[in-house]
Amino acid sequence: MPARQAAPKRVLRPGTNLYPLPAVLVSCAAEVGGERRENLITLAWTGIACAEPPMITIAVRKSRFSHGLIAASREFVVNVPSADMSLAVDLCGSISGRDADKFARAALTPSPAGVVRAPLVAECPVSLECRVRHTYEAGSHDLFVGEIVAVQAAETVLDADGKIDVALVDPLAYGGGWYWRLGERLGAYGHSVA
Amino acid sequence: MPARQAAPKRVLRPGTNLYPLPAVLVSCAAEVGGERRENLITLAWTGIACAEPPMITIAVRKSRFSHGLIAASREFVVNVPSADMSLAVDLCGSISGRDADKFARAALTPSPAGVVRAPLVAECPVSLECRVRHTYEAGSHDLFVGEIVAVQAAETVLDADGKIDVALVDPLAYGGGWYWRLGERLGAYGHSVA
Repeated sequence: MPARQAAPKRVLRPGTNLYPLPAVLVSCAAEVGGERRENLITLAWTGIACAEPPMITIAVRKSRFSHGLIAASREFVVNVPSADMSLAVDLCGSISGRDADKFARAALTPSPAGVVRAPLVAECPVSLECRVRHTYEAGSHDLFVGEIVAVQAAETVLDADGKIDVALVDPLAYGGGWYWRLGERLGAYGHSVA
Repeated sequence: MPARQAAPKRVLRPGTNLYPLPAVLVSCAAEVGGERRENLITLAWTGIACAEPPMITIAVRKSRFSHGLIAASREFVVNVPSADMSLAVDLCGSISGRDADKFARAALTPSPAGVVRAPLVAECPVSLECRVRHTYEAGSHDLFVGEIVAVQAAETVLDADGKIDVALVDPLAYGGGWYWRLGERLGAYGHSVA
């Protein structure tokens, strides 16, 4: 393998400088004051935690309306949007569900999930239904670790074998305060030893 | 906001269908049989866990050589590669450090970190030095939650204000078995309400 040049480094203040991140819509629901409330929250702080069983993390600031709904119901849905939904995704990350119906404001449709009681976002091509298995109080944010108990995908993003084709999903990335679309496909896993 | 069309959905087997993910090189070190061993592991299963203090997750299969090094030292470094390092990144995800010196095989250079004893990858433009604060045994994988105690970035990826410019990092994404480069920049956080 050819050697590369390493540039001189500067020490920065410790921060969350991981790139790129997935921009997703997390949906949730719970009873609040005797009334069922549904909400959406835009997150980039999500990641995979385990293969068997499949698990995912979401980091949610304790002050968020969605934090209370997820803590109470112990359920959430991670909805993977397409890049052309970036305006709706950004809107759901910029207003609070305490005061507004984010589904209506963002012209998104709640639809019943298969296993959990939280709704899916119908317009998102992939939805991961999750049950909270573990909560770590990290500081400003709680880290919810959810088992992925069901997956729904739009017929339009499935390949001939019924598997999700990421190019058809056209997912939305986030990094450095900007939303990005994926670009060039560089190689398949394992191509270095193939 | 204009309404979008929602495609019919299909229920799939529960899996880790989150897109896109960051492809990173995690470096670690510990004493094994009285000898200091350093290793690298390629991961896409990493995510941000908290803002204050800054925290990050990595999911590592228990059978991996790096798992033992991280569990023993309770330290690791998340190195964010550039997209043009995809071959080296893939190689470090395809061979085991038990039998091979991955730094040498991938033509990467270990360099001293500022705070932790694990090495940085000199060629990566951003490195996050981490100390394990929490471990969740999720199943096949352990989820290590690390506090980001130091950040180093290449001078070449800093903007005029000394902040990391993601376009200059040109980070590597992963999804559906493929490595990707970021493409079109779609808008800044908050543009929907600006």
